[in-house]
Order: sequence, then structure tokens, then C-alpha cells
Amino acid sequence: MNWEIFLAPYTQAVDELKIKLKGMRKQFDYESRHSPIEFVTGRVKPITSILEKAKRRDIAIANVEDEVQDIAGLRVVCPFVEDIYDVVDMLRLRKDFSIVEEKDYIEKNKDSGYRSFHVIIRYPVETIYGEKQLLAEIQIRTLAMNFWAINEHSLNYKYSGQIPSEVTERLRSASEAAFRLDEEMSKIRQEIRDAQEVFRRKKD
Amino acid sequence: MNWEIFLAPYTQAVDELKIKLKGMRKQFDYESRHSPIEFVTGRVKPITSILEKAKRRDIAIANVEDEVQDIAGLRVVCPFVEDIYDVVDMLRLRKDFSIVEEKDYIEKNKDSGYRSFHVIIRYPVETIYGEKQLLAEIQIRTLAMNFWAINEHSLNYKYSGQIPSEVTERLRSASEAAFRLDEEMSKIRQEIRDAQEVFRRKKD
Amino acid sequence: MNWEIFLAPYTQAVDELKIKLKGMRKQFDYESRHSPIEFVTGRVKPITSILEKAKRRDIAIANVEDEVQDIAGLRVVCPFVEDIYDVVDMLRLRKDFSIVEEKDYIEKNKDSGYRSFHVIIRYPVETIYGEKQLLAEIQIRTLAMNFWAINEHSLNYKYSGQIPSEVTERLRSASEAAFRLDEEMSKIRQEIRDAQEVFRRKKD
Amino acid sequence: MNWEIFLAPYTQAVDELKIKLKGMRKQFDYESRHSPIEFVTGRVKPITSILEKAKRRDIAIANVEDEVQDIAGLRVVCPFVEDIYDVVDMLRLRKDFSIVEEKDYIEKNKDSGYRSFHVIIRYPVETIYGEKQLLAEIQIRTLAMNFWAINEHSLNYKYSGQIPSEVTERLRSASEAAFRLDEEMSKIRQEIRDAQEVFRRKKD
Repeated sequence: MNWEIFLAPYTQAVDELKIKLKGMRKQFDYESRHSPIEFVTGRVKPITSILEKAKRRDIAIANVEDEVQDIAGLRVVCPFVEDIYDVVDMLRLRKDFSIVEEKDYIEKNKDSGYRSFHVIIRYPVETIYGEKQLLAEIQIRTLAMNFWAINEHSLNYKYSGQIPSEVTERLRSASEAAFRLDEEMSKIRQEIRDAQEVFRRKKD
Repeated sequence: MNWEIFLAPYTQAVDELKIKLKGMRKQFDYESRHSPIEFVTGRVKPITSILEKAKRRDIAIANVEDEVQDIAGLRVVCPFVEDIYDVVDMLRLRKDFSIVEEKDYIEKNKDSGYRSFHVIIRYPVETIYGEKQLLAEIQIRTLAMNFWAINEHSLNYKYSGQIPSEVTERLRSASEAAFRLDEEMSKIRQEIRDAQEVFRRKKD
Repeated sequence: MNWEIFLAPYTQAVDELKIKLKGMRKQFDYESRHSPIEFVTGRVKPITSILEKAKRRDIAIANVEDEVQDIAGLRVVCPFVEDIYDVVDMLRLRKDFSIVEEKDYIEKNKDSGYRSFHVIIRYPVETIYGEKQLLAEIQIRTLAMNFWAINEHSLNYKYSGQIPSEVTERLRSASEAAFRLDEEMSKIRQEIRDAQEVFRRKKD
Repeated sequence: MNWEIFLAPYTQAVDELKIKLKGMRKQFDYESRHSPIEFVTGRVKPITSILEKAKRRDIAIANVEDEVQDIAGLRVVCPFVEDIYDVVDMLRLRKDFSIVEEKDYIEKNKDSGYRSFHVIIRYPVETIYGEKQLLAEIQIRTLAMNFWAINEHSLNYKYSGQIPSEVTERLRSASEAAFRLDEEMSKIRQEIRDAQEVFRRKKD
């Protein structure tokens, strides 16, 4: 299997989707509105990680394309928890891709402490040989969720997925601290809205 | 008219199309094939230029969107003249936009000496309020054509479109020199192909 | 005063310093070492903010260059609190700028809850008229500190610096939550190091 | 030899020098002056090319650093021949690197038809282990020279440096055509200046 040629359309899809999702943020800026998007990143899954995932889940190489859904991965980071659902709503309206699946790990978070909203999409990308439909995963998170997830990922990597129980414990405490930070921030968000409402009422 | 909001989808379209056209070049590189694309640039037409063009062609501001076709402008620069037609063929196959018009100023070049191939497309761009179809112009040229055109443009700008006849004369000589350079380069292109054919025949 | 010409060397300095600080991160990656730098951002202070600061601190326009130290602003964001001091140590060793002042708002944080380490540098930038020495501020923070600071900044902006006391209270709670998250994360950092030490001892 | 670690400071130097040379162009734009720089590119020499050059010139690997001067390579492309010398003058004034050697292949062009101005510099780059002085080559050319050189380079590559004599002949014709184009363009440059002078004299 020539991985470079296999991955080329995924690289192209990630580049295009980054520009498209960043464009949503820019539009809020142009109109001086609060943007529910703080920043956007993207990456193509490294070959070794694709192979590991295929092995772990018993996926034949020929089926990688259909069964590994996050070869093309996008991440949208939001200031507040509430913004995540606004972003999901906007994704549902777009016509340049179709949503295949939604996974809400915020409402019902994983045991590890992981919180995030995942949207799996089918995206048409043009190659020099014609159109190709491929799967991509968009993860939507707050800054605190993202911070925690980056650190868990690097620990998982170091311990090859076998994190010792006392470290798992500490990670869970950190996840709670991240959750608390999101809660405190959401309260301020409310303050801002309340204050603005009072301000507007006075003006009328 | 709020120009920043009016131009936002054009900026987005230019960003997306740049990534898409550059992606074509990258695919040739991945496969170690000669790329018919040397580089790609893009720009949104400055507001003053839109207004001047509207005035010159007697277009009402309300019709700018439909009648000024190059508000979103892309430029594809090719090594050899022959590559231009390969690029046009690839554009015709794409499904992410539709071609509205083609203008071949190479076969039948303008009096000024201007040579280039223009493709006008209708491109769907997603905004936070839904999809918007807009026009964009893709200019396809060789390096020599591009070099000449850049210089003619700056002279036109300096003389506000009223270039003195002796300068027009000199521009025409320069255009011929650019044409000659393209011809000489095309001959070398043939050499490369011939040499490669000989090489392959020997291997059989 | 022509602000665009006045700010040009600051823009240039920010561009150069971003490349230089990001380069530090890349070097850790090349050597597969833990990078104390997560990401780097930079900006030139908007003209309105320069004028406001000058007014608030009673600085004459002619002295803005010497007395407003953050016209060129860089931000280095670190995974762990301990990394901040590693970054400061590396900055002290560089010969391409000199450090004018250091302000540790982590050891001794501000009333508002703001935590960050500031380094003011004198940086030589080459212009087309020769070398110009200018001041720049590098802020070094953890992800949690940064998250909090971004939100405080936007609240300050909304309330024009006059944040109501109950919002100030909430901001302080959020700052404590951010501090707790940093503490929890620092504990995991230690786990990683301990685990690695045990691992190495076993190998001997 | 660990090439990735060896090349890291060269990559850093190329990134910094690109920002610095592009900055010169931007400054002309800010001041609405004709820029002698059309665009700037940069690259680190691929490892295979470094090894080939070392072999061809009988350079020991230990001496590559001192004797292969173009591991870090920058290219400045100018609209007109005259602009090349303006750029060289500006490089001579900079204090952030020192010039080691200048080679004028325009006045005295190579047999192949190659024309360009090369400046070899010694550039101090900061690494996480301290400052490192390294060599870099800046090539300064017109658009026509650049176009020709890119094509010659790809032919050289295809024929592994043994270009057949009839192709060499054609390359020389193409070089003459490129030279003629530069000459024609220089004449227009003069027109612009003359026209502007007449215009200014009238105003007095």
C-alpha cells in the first residue's frame, strides 16, 4: 500500500475544512459578534496510529477507509460549553458535507474524564482523477476540555494505553478541575449577557 | 452598502479556491509527475477597483454581484503554454463549481499584447447564514505571460488607462519577447519528452 | 503622526520574534524532548489601545515609543507552570535581544486574579533605512492562565475597565479554578517524571 | 550523522531570513514606493543534493558546514535588472548578518546561460544550546532569469548534469530570449521614470 498516495486526499480534505471552519470564525469577527469558535486545528492521523487503531479494533487494511473515521481530523475549540452546541447547529446546516454520526461525550462523558462533542462527516474532495467521498471527524470542545485531552493523550502515549491506576485517579481529578473551570466561566458568560440585557433595557 | 460584509464571502471563496488549486499541484508532486501548475495566487478585488470598473462599464451598484465577474480572482501560473490547456481540462472535470464562460486570449490575444486564458466559474460558498453562489475568475498563464501582465497592469495604473502610444509600442515589443521566450521553452519541453521516450524504448 | 509607518518596524519585530520563539518549540520536537512551549502568538497593539494607554498613564505621544512597552507583544503558552521558568531561562541566554525588565505575576499575582510572567526586551530590527532598537513584551503563561486572561480581557473591554464587583468576584473564583487546574496538572507532570525514573532504573 | 538535528538550525535560519527579506518588500509597499523585490522564496538543500555536491567537489562530510555554502538558500526575485543592484546595496547595509562573498553572474554570465547575483552571508542563529553562526546563500534575479534557471535546473536533474549538446543549444537560445525580455522591460522602466520626471517638472 502506497500510504502517501492513499493519504493525499485526506490531507487535501483537512486543508479545505480548516479554511472552511476558520471562515466561520472570521464571519463573526466581521460582524463584531461573539464568536463561538476560539480556534481551529487539523491533522491527518499518522500512519503508525492508523495501523495501531486497525490492529486494536481488528480492522482489515482494505476497510481502513470506511472504518477508521478519524484519518482526517479537525478540532474546533470554543470559549464556553454553550458555544459547542451553537457550532454543532451550524455544522448541521452546511451543504458542503453530510453528517454521518454525532457523539456527545459532554452530556455522557467517558470514564477516563474525557469530554468532547464529535461529529463524523462525509466530505467530497476533488482529486486530479475525479471526486472522492471520504470520512472526517470534527471534535468540538472548550479550552479546558482541550487542555485536559491533550495531556491525557500524551500520558496514554507514554504508557501505551496502560495508564497506572493512581495516574488515572489524578487525571480524573484534573478532569474535575477542568469541569469546574468551565462551570465558573459559564457563570461569567451569563453575567455578560445579563449585564447587556440590563444595559439595553435602560436604553429603551 | 457595507463593503466588508459584502466582500466576506468573496474572501472566503478565494481562500478555499487557493487551497483547492494548490492541492492539484501537490497531487502531481506526490506522484512525482510533471506539474502543469507552477504556482497559484488569489486576491479579492479592491473596493476602489470594483467602483471604477462599475463606472467604466456603466453597471449599477445593485448589479455588481452579477456583472463584475472578477471580484474573486485566482491566478494559476504554468511552466509551459501547453500546460495551460491541461489545467483548463482539469477544471472542466471538477464538480465543486460550474464553468460559466471561457475566454481564450492566447489563441486570439488582445491588441495590447495581453495573453491569458480566463475561466469564469459559479462557486457555492457556505456562510453562517447558509449557502451563497458567487462568480469567480480563474486566469491561467505562463510565467512569461504573467510577468508581462503584471508590468502592463502597473503601467495602466500609473497612466490611469491612458498609456502614451510610444509606451504602448514598447509594451508590445516586450509582449513579443515574452512570446518568444514561451516558444523557446516549449521547444525544450519537446526535447524532454523526446528524450524520455528514447529512454523508455531502450528499456523495453 | 503616520501610524502605519510608525508601526511598520513593530510588525516586522513581531513577525521575526514569532518565528524565533516557534523555532525553540520545533527544536524540542526534532530531538523528541518534552517541549516547555505549547504555542506562540503575537500581535501589534491596535492604535486605539495605544492611545488609550497613553492617555490613562499620561504619556505624551512623543514618548509612546519608550514608555508603552507592549506595542510589540508576544505570548508563549506552556503546558505546565514549571515550564514557564524554563522558558524564561532560555530567553535570558539569547544574544539576539537584551532583557530590560522581568515581572513575575505568578509568584505575586495581581488582585484581579491575573497570573503571568512578563519579560520586556530591547530588540534590534533592520529597516530599509538602517537598524532600529525597539521594546517588546513577551508574556509567558500556562494554558489555564491564558484561558482566564483572554476572558478577563474581553470583560474589561466590555465594561471599559469598570467591571462590577460581583463580576470581579466571579472572575476571582474562575481564577482559583484555573489555578487548581494548573496544580492538578503539575501533579501529573510529576507522575510522568517519577514513572520514567522508575522505568530507567529498571533498565540498568 | 543525524541529519535532522544537523539541518535544524539551517531550517530556522531560512525561516528567519524569509521573514526579514519579505519585510523589506512590505516596507516599500507601506510607503507606496516601487519595490525592487517582487517575491522571496527559501529552502533548505535536500540531503541527497548536499551529499552529491560534497562528492562532486570532493568535500569531506566533516567540512560540509564550511564548504557547502548553499545549505540554507534564499531567493529574491526582482521586476527589473536594475533592482537587483538596489537589493544588493540594501543587503550590504544590514547588521544582522555579514557578507562573506559576492558573485555577479549577470555582468559575467556562465556558459550555460545562467544569470543571477549571489551573496554568501554568515548568519547568527539562536538554538536552544546557544548561538550558531552558519553560511547561507542569497540569489538575486529577475523574473525572466528565474524562469530560465528553474527550467535549466529541472533539465540538469533529468539528465543528471549531462545535458546533450543540442538541448544545451536550445537552453542557450532560451536564455537569450529571457535576456531580451529583461532588456525590453528595462526600456519600459525608463519610460515610467521619464514620464514621472516630466510630470513632476510640469507641477513645479
